[in-house]
Amino acid sequence: MDGVILTPLKRINHPKGDIFHAMKNGDDGFEGFGEAYFSTINKADIKGWKKHTKMVLNLVVPVGTIEFILYNEDSKDFLSIELSSENYQRLTVHQNIWMAFRGKDENNLLLNLASIEHQPEEAMKLDINEIEYAW
Amino acid sequence: MDGVILTPLKRINHPKGDIFHAMKNGDDGFEGFGEAYFSTINKADIKGWKKHTKMVLNLVVPVGTIEFILYNEDSKDFLSIELSSENYQRLTVHQNIWMAFRGKDENNLLLNLASIEHQPEEAMKLDINEIEYAW
Repeated sequence: MDGVILTPLKRINHPKGDIFHAMKNGDDGFEGFGEAYFSTINKADIKGWKKHTKMVLNLVVPVGTIEFILYNEDSKDFLSIELSSENYQRLTVHQNIWMAFRGKDENNLLLNLASIEHQPEEAMKLDINEIEYAW
Repeated sequence: MDGVILTPLKRINHPKGDIFHAMKNGDDGFEGFGEAYFSTINKADIKGWKKHTKMVLNLVVPVGTIEFILYNEDSKDFLSIELSSENYQRLTVHQNIWMAFRGKDENNLLLNLASIEHQPEEAMKLDINEIEYAW
């Protein structure tokens, strides 16, 4: 989908605890560092829909499993991507893509390395039933 | 301790899963974005000692509990700090501070928002018994 990049990331085995890469300055999809924050999502709960008009998201899931649904309102395309520490990839979401996400395990954690700081006025929200998707 | 900053961070309650702030561009302790990576540490295992000559670390613990021991070899001071999602703070570690850390829970995860990309030659390592500390 235009505006979406999936980048496989390294998980480095270590006997005392693995290392998980997330993002380097200059990586594909990096558009500057504005803010980093975590979001948790309970099992079976869905957060969304939301789209950003300025922020580029870079999303990594080091704990649990999260299903992301992306919706391009120009092409009317949906894209479903499930990320976890097993399917360990970075999901870059450019501006004007609608996104919702659902927790799949008991504990689910995502890190967003956002290109700008949180600004409520640059994000748009819709209720989950305002974009029809066969969850 | 000189070279170390502790910054309380917001945890925003949400019925579908809480949000945890980590760092904004321009926050106290932010010295540029080089790389973000996760490290896990098994219960009772210790990683360290390590010090960086160029990298500034910004450490956040969204899962589990991790005990950090910092050692300033000039002043011979030790500092012990335990971080978790309950004691949710950002630990900034400037250059030339020795650090080791121990996992306290079953699952422990730290995020390092590092000021430069990983460069093996800028870090120094010592075996855990080479700096005496009453673990």
